[in-house]
Amino acid sequence: MPAIHIKNAYILTMNAEREIFDGGDILIEDGTIRAAGFLDPQSIPEDAEVVDACGRIVMPGLVNTHVHLSQQLGRGLGDDVDLITWLHERTWPYERSLTAEDNLVSAQACCLEMIRSGVTCFAEPGGQHVDTMGRAVEEAGIRGILARSTMDCGEGIPENERESTDQCLDRQLEHMENWHGKADGRISVWFGLRTIFNNSDELLTRTKELADSRGVGMHMHVAEVREEIDYTKTQRGAPTVEHLNRLGVLGPNLLAVHTVWITPREMDLFRLHDVKVSHCPGAAMKVLGFAPVPEMLERGICVSIGTDGAPCNNRMDMFDEMYLTAMIHKGRTLAPTAVPAERVLEMATIKGAEALLMGGVTGSLEPGKAADLIMIDMRRHPGSVPVHDAVANLVYAMRSSCVDSVMCTGKWVMQDRTVLTLDEQGILEEAQERAEHIRKRAGIALPERFPVRTR
Amino acid sequence: MPAIHIKNAYILTMNAEREIFDGGDILIEDGTIRAAGFLDPQSIPEDAEVVDACGRIVMPGLVNTHVHLSQQLGRGLGDDVDLITWLHERTWPYERSLTAEDNLVSAQACCLEMIRSGVTCFAEPGGQHVDTMGRAVEEAGIRGILARSTMDCGEGIPENERESTDQCLDRQLEHMENWHGKADGRISVWFGLRTIFNNSDELLTRTKELADSRGVGMHMHVAEVREEIDYTKTQRGAPTVEHLNRLGVLGPNLLAVHTVWITPREMDLFRLHDVKVSHCPGAAMKVLGFAPVPEMLERGICVSIGTDGAPCNNRMDMFDEMYLTAMIHKGRTLAPTAVPAERVLEMATIKGAEALLMGGVTGSLEPGKAADLIMIDMRRHPGSVPVHDAVANLVYAMRSSCVDSVMCTGKWVMQDRTVLTLDEQGILEEAQERAEHIRKRAGIALPERFPVRTR
Repeated sequence: MPAIHIKNAYILTMNAEREIFDGGDILIEDGTIRAAGFLDPQSIPEDAEVVDACGRIVMPGLVNTHVHLSQQLGRGLGDDVDLITWLHERTWPYERSLTAEDNLVSAQACCLEMIRSGVTCFAEPGGQHVDTMGRAVEEAGIRGILARSTMDCGEGIPENERESTDQCLDRQLEHMENWHGKADGRISVWFGLRTIFNNSDELLTRTKELADSRGVGMHMHVAEVREEIDYTKTQRGAPTVEHLNRLGVLGPNLLAVHTVWITPREMDLFRLHDVKVSHCPGAAMKVLGFAPVPEMLERGICVSIGTDGAPCNNRMDMFDEMYLTAMIHKGRTLAPTAVPAERVLEMATIKGAEALLMGGVTGSLEPGKAADLIMIDMRRHPGSVPVHDAVANLVYAMRSSCVDSVMCTGKWVMQDRTVLTLDEQGILEEAQERAEHIRKRAGIALPERFPVRTR
Repeated sequence: MPAIHIKNAYILTMNAEREIFDGGDILIEDGTIRAAGFLDPQSIPEDAEVVDACGRIVMPGLVNTHVHLSQQLGRGLGDDVDLITWLHERTWPYERSLTAEDNLVSAQACCLEMIRSGVTCFAEPGGQHVDTMGRAVEEAGIRGILARSTMDCGEGIPENERESTDQCLDRQLEHMENWHGKADGRISVWFGLRTIFNNSDELLTRTKELADSRGVGMHMHVAEVREEIDYTKTQRGAPTVEHLNRLGVLGPNLLAVHTVWITPREMDLFRLHDVKVSHCPGAAMKVLGFAPVPEMLERGICVSIGTDGAPCNNRMDMFDEMYLTAMIHKGRTLAPTAVPAERVLEMATIKGAEALLMGGVTGSLEPGKAADLIMIDMRRHPGSVPVHDAVANLVYAMRSSCVDSVMCTGKWVMQDRTVLTLDEQGILEEAQERAEHIRKRAGIALPERFPVRTR
C-alpha cells in the first residue's frame, strides 16, 4: 500500500497540546500516521498518493461511545410516548421480532449513518445478535466495540431473553473468542451490563473480575431514569453508583452511560475510580432528563458523547450530539459560557477514545496512531459559511452533511460523499422493507397523527 | 406558464382537517394551488408539466418567523461568551461595521441556508439596510417580511443608530412605501420594535396605531432575558407584557419573539389578545433559557418557530429548530409526551403563516393558496430510513439535507438540490471574504481555543 500525503489541510490534531496546523501535512503509511504538522517535502515518499485538502478541516474521526446497532430499524417506533409504553409496547416487541438477518441490515444502516456523520469508532452496549453485528462492522470498515445484552434478573424480561448468570457470562466469552481483535483489530468485544434492574449483584461482580482479567471494558446504562434510583435504594440498599462502589465494580474499565440521576458524591466516586461516562444528550432531552455534564467536567471526569439508539434519539449523528452537548447545559444553567466548543470537541474525539480504552490507538492525529480521520469542507455549505472560528463552527454550525471523506486505519471508507465500503442504496431499501415487516410481526400499531387518506 | 401536476406524492396538506393523501396529486396554475388530493386524470390540463413525487413527502414550505438576515456574516462571533460580551464586544461592533453591500451578501447567504432547509416564508425583525434585504429577497424567490431596527431610547446604543421617535417611524414608513407588496407580493414590510430597553412608550403606542391603520404587523423581542423584567418593573412599573398591555399594544398583529421570562397571567393576556409568539429554541438553549412552550400551547396561543440570527443560534435551519422544539420541553418537564411531532409540524407551517398574518396565503396546501411547497426524499438518507411514521420522522430524524426541491408561488427555487435563483458558490465565497473584512474593521478579536501553528 503506497503512502498517503494529505496536504494544505487545516489540521485539528487533538494531541496533548491540542495543536492546530493551518496549511499542514499528514503522512500515512501502512494505516498508521507517521507525521502530522509541517513536513519537509523531502521526507515524503515520491510515490505517495497526494490528497489536496485546501479549504478543508482534517481531524480525528469522531468516537460514538454509545450506539445500539440493533435498534436502527426501530427508529420512529417510540416517539411521543411515556417510558413504559416505549419499553413494553414498542422496544421489547421490536427486539423480540428482530431476526439475525434483520439485525445485519440494522447494523449496516446504522454504520452508514455513522460514517456519513464522521464516526470512525463506536461502542455498542449490547444487542442479541453479536455475530451479525460483527459481520456489519467487518464490512463497514470502521472500528467497533461490540457487546451482548445481558439480563439475568428482574421483572418483565421477554421469555426468550431470560438467562442464568452463567449463561450470560458464557455466551459473552464465546463472542469474545470469535470476534475480539478481528478485522485487523478493528473489532473488540466488551462485557455488556444492561441496567441494574436486570443485572444481579453476582453478575456485576463476576463481570468485573472477568473484564479485569481480560483487559477489556464493561458497558452499562447507569442512573438512567429516576425510577432506577428508587429501585436500587429499595432493592439493593443504595442508589446505583453507591451500590456499584460497594460491590467493587467502579473502575477505569467501566463505561457508565447516561448518568442523569447521579449525586455530587457519586460524581466524586467516578472521579476517584476513573470511571468513564458516555453522555447522550439527545436521549437525555427526549426521555431521561438533563445530565450534570458541566459538573462532571469540572471534576475532571472523562466524559464522552454517544448517540444512543434510533428509537430514543432519533438522530444517530455525532454532529447533532456535539451541538446539543454544547447547547443544553447553557440553557439549563443559564450560563452561556458552560461547556464551550473546545471541550465538546475533546469529548467527541480524544475523550471518546480514552473512554473506550483506546487513547493510544485513535482519537487524535499523532505519529504512531491509526489513521482514523475525517475531512470537512469549510466552504461549500450555506449552513457553515462564514467560518470565523473553525472549532466553534464545527460544534455550533456544521452538520454531518459537511463531512466529505472518512478514513479508518488508513483506508478510505467514504470519499467525496460516496461511501465505498457498503452498498448504500441497497441497504436503505432493504432496511425500509424489513422494518415494515418487523413492525407487523411485532404487532406494533402506531396511532395516526393526522388522518391518512388512500385512494 | 403551463400548469404543474405533482403526482404520486405523500402529501401533508396541513389543511383544517390536517389530511394526508398517500399517493396524491397537486395541481398548480398561475402560481396558485388549484387542487390537492386525489384528482380525476381528466381534470388535469394535457400540457401540464408532470412531476413524479414517488417516495417523496410534499408539504407546505416551512415558515421561519424570526431570522436576522443582517447577522449571517457574524455567525461564530458570539459563541461561549456572556451576554454583555456578546452584545457590546461582538454584535454591536459587527453591526456598526456592516456596509449596505455586506448586508446584501449577508441576506443572500441567509436566504440560501433557508432555501436549503425548506423555508419559503420568513420574517426579519429589523436590520439597518432594508433596501439591500429587499433586493436579496426579490432575487431569492421566497417570501419575506422585512422590518427596520428601531431604537429611540436606552443606554449603550451605538452613536450611528440613535434616532428620535419621529425618525424611527418616518424611516419605516419610507421602507413601507418602497417595498411593501413588491416582488409580486412576496415582500411585505412590518414595523420593527427592537426591545423594551430601547423603545420608548411613545414609540410603542404610535407604532401600534400605525400598524393597525395599515393592516400590518409588529415584530418585537419580548421578555427575552431575565434582566429585561427587572428593567421594566423598575423603569416602567410592570413586567414587559403587563406593561405592553397597559399601553394597549397587545393585539393579533403583535409577533412577540422569545417570551422566555413570561408569567402565567401574561400568557393569559396573550391568549386574550391573540398575540402571536415566535419560539426560537436554539437561541433559548444557548443564551436565554427555556420558554414555557407547552404551557402556551395548552392555552391555545398561536406559537410559531424561528431560527433567530447566526451569532446566537447558529444554525439557521428549521429542521433543527423543529427537532429542538420537540425535544427541549420533554427534557425540561420530564414528560416524554410534551410537544409531540404533529404540534411541531403545525408550528413550523400553518401556525407560522398565521403568526405572520398570512394564514390565507401560505402555510398549507389547499386550493386557492399560493403554491409554496417543498419535496422531501424519504428513501435516500441513512439518517431518516426507515420511515415508520412520516410526521414523527420529519420532526425527529430528518435534516435539511433531506429537502430535495423548494417551490414558492409556483416557481422552483431549488430543484434536486440545486438552488436556481442564487449563485450559491459565488455568494458563499463573497460571504467568507466580506465576513473576514468586517471582523477586522470591527476590531473583534476572537480568542484562540487551541494553539494555531502557521508555517
